[in-house]
Amino acid sequence: MTEIPVISGEAVFAAIDPGIAVERTRLSFERHALGEWEMPPKVYLDSPPNGDFRAMPARGDGLALLKWVTSFPGNSAKGLPVVRGEILLSDAETGEELAVIECSSVTSLRTGAAAAVSAQALAAAGAKSVGIIGCGVNGAWSARCLAAVGYGPGVCADVRAEPAEALAGELGWRVGDRAEAAAQDVVVTVTPGREPVILASDLRPGQHVAVLGADAHGKQEVELEAIERCRLFCDEWEQASAGGELSNGVAAGAIRREQVTQLGEVLIGSTVGRRSSEEITLFDSTGLAIQDLAIVQAIYAAWQDGRIAAPLVEL
Amino acid sequence: MTEIPVISGEAVFAAIDPGIAVERTRLSFERHALGEWEMPPKVYLDSPPNGDFRAMPARGDGLALLKWVTSFPGNSAKGLPVVRGEILLSDAETGEELAVIECSSVTSLRTGAAAAVSAQALAAAGAKSVGIIGCGVNGAWSARCLAAVGYGPGVCADVRAEPAEALAGELGWRVGDRAEAAAQDVVVTVTPGREPVILASDLRPGQHVAVLGADAHGKQEVELEAIERCRLFCDEWEQASAGGELSNGVAAGAIRREQVTQLGEVLIGSTVGRRSSEEITLFDSTGLAIQDLAIVQAIYAAWQDGRIAAPLVEL
Repeated sequence: MTEIPVISGEAVFAAIDPGIAVERTRLSFERHALGEWEMPPKVYLDSPPNGDFRAMPARGDGLALLKWVTSFPGNSAKGLPVVRGEILLSDAETGEELAVIECSSVTSLRTGAAAAVSAQALAAAGAKSVGIIGCGVNGAWSARCLAAVGYGPGVCADVRAEPAEALAGELGWRVGDRAEAAAQDVVVTVTPGREPVILASDLRPGQHVAVLGADAHGKQEVELEAIERCRLFCDEWEQASAGGELSNGVAAGAIRREQVTQLGEVLIGSTVGRRSSEEITLFDSTGLAIQDLAIVQAIYAAWQDGRIAAPLVEL
Repeated sequence: MTEIPVISGEAVFAAIDPGIAVERTRLSFERHALGEWEMPPKVYLDSPPNGDFRAMPARGDGLALLKWVTSFPGNSAKGLPVVRGEILLSDAETGEELAVIECSSVTSLRTGAAAAVSAQALAAAGAKSVGIIGCGVNGAWSARCLAAVGYGPGVCADVRAEPAEALAGELGWRVGDRAEAAAQDVVVTVTPGREPVILASDLRPGQHVAVLGADAHGKQEVELEAIERCRLFCDEWEQASAGGELSNGVAAGAIRREQVTQLGEVLIGSTVGRRSSEEITLFDSTGLAIQDLAIVQAIYAAWQDGRIAAPLVEL
């Protein structure tokens, strides 16, 4: 009989603040780029017409993780969460079960943190102002993570007034329209990806754009003409080319592998990031299981240290 | 905040007896053959030198399941379980988390049950006696499931005396050597697959052989010359040809797709199983997530009906 903790979303947020999430997420990109952390491609289980479930494994530092998570876009309209599920943590040496952890909290933290890590690595020197296009859960966590590492103030734009106002109020930022948000130094898009929210006419030299919303083929937040004006980065080429923002351009033959740099390679110094203050950098974030692993490693350590409480259950 | 039950292995065994496991497993093969239940290929996360973790999703009857399970062959020698992990159950319509369930109990039940379902569908009329080669956990559950549906008595063979004696004692069967077990009407092999335990010289007309041990490429329990004398069946061609008993023959060009029938097609009557009382049938069982789903559906129903107890946890 094995006894393991079940760690709630509330406990996750008690253990991990945005600043820690940024540090952990950067570490995950570095470890993966160094070949120390492993991650097979995620597997999709379609659940039409609602969306899909994703099973996302990763291994590193003696831990093995599996995230089981929904992407049910229609759930918002029903008042249900789009992203939900659990993370299972195991000992990679013995196979022992270590913990069950609520997954939308971890997903929010690592998704928002990826935007902040990309800005730290790729934004121009002196970049400060932030535009958030799409102020739902992951837009809000992107803003919080950027604020935690010194970016802002920013402009919060959303087709719905309420989440933009709530986020602006929380951070002391302001509400604006899409074009205002798209004009800032660091722009983050986290929309459903049904139509472009960054146009070529929005872009100006020196900007950094982090594109988080498109996480499946067919979704697109940046028009192709705008993408073609940017120097391109992604979290992981296989995922980004198959289902991320870049996938439409890849399918159209407009984007080739050699044009796109993985962020981790910049972070470990094996390649150059931004090459001039004029360049526009675009980071396509598809969301990696290694990011979840880095956050979960810190959550599990917090539980081991008695910094968060969790009920124990027998398997 | 979502509250879900965590169902232990003990509770699983309290809810599901071998007879129910056989019924549920048969149903899963049928539903899958009818195209009603879905199952993407499992994904492997290597964890050298210990083995691998497998993430196995399936969907059917409004439920979505993910099994996260180890295959750590070296664990036996360390006194640790080879197969361990958890199953996550979700609502396929809403994405809501429904339960966390201990996984080795479910795996044992559905693995043993597959051997029994294959015998019911493929063994010759009048087949009765059973040979179990490899009396570890899954060998024992195969014997229990075969006994539950009327097969036996049988011969229990294992290179270790203790598990063979324990199993024979439990079921009122007897201990014998490999060749004796291989001579019975229904033969089940559940060994580590490092060397063949069924030779061409063992086989006699009318036998049914269920091969459960080889669950990854390179493992082999039946010598190729013996396989070539059998009419071939499997649980699922993609898995069996890639990593099951048949995979070595497929890789060598000795086994082609059109020679192998999926068991579910026999069960739903879309094709013929055994064609004569003389034929030797061989079923390659690799283990499918749909089998887990069928067992878990019954476990969850038992919990909903108050037939088993489980602690509730908040996510």
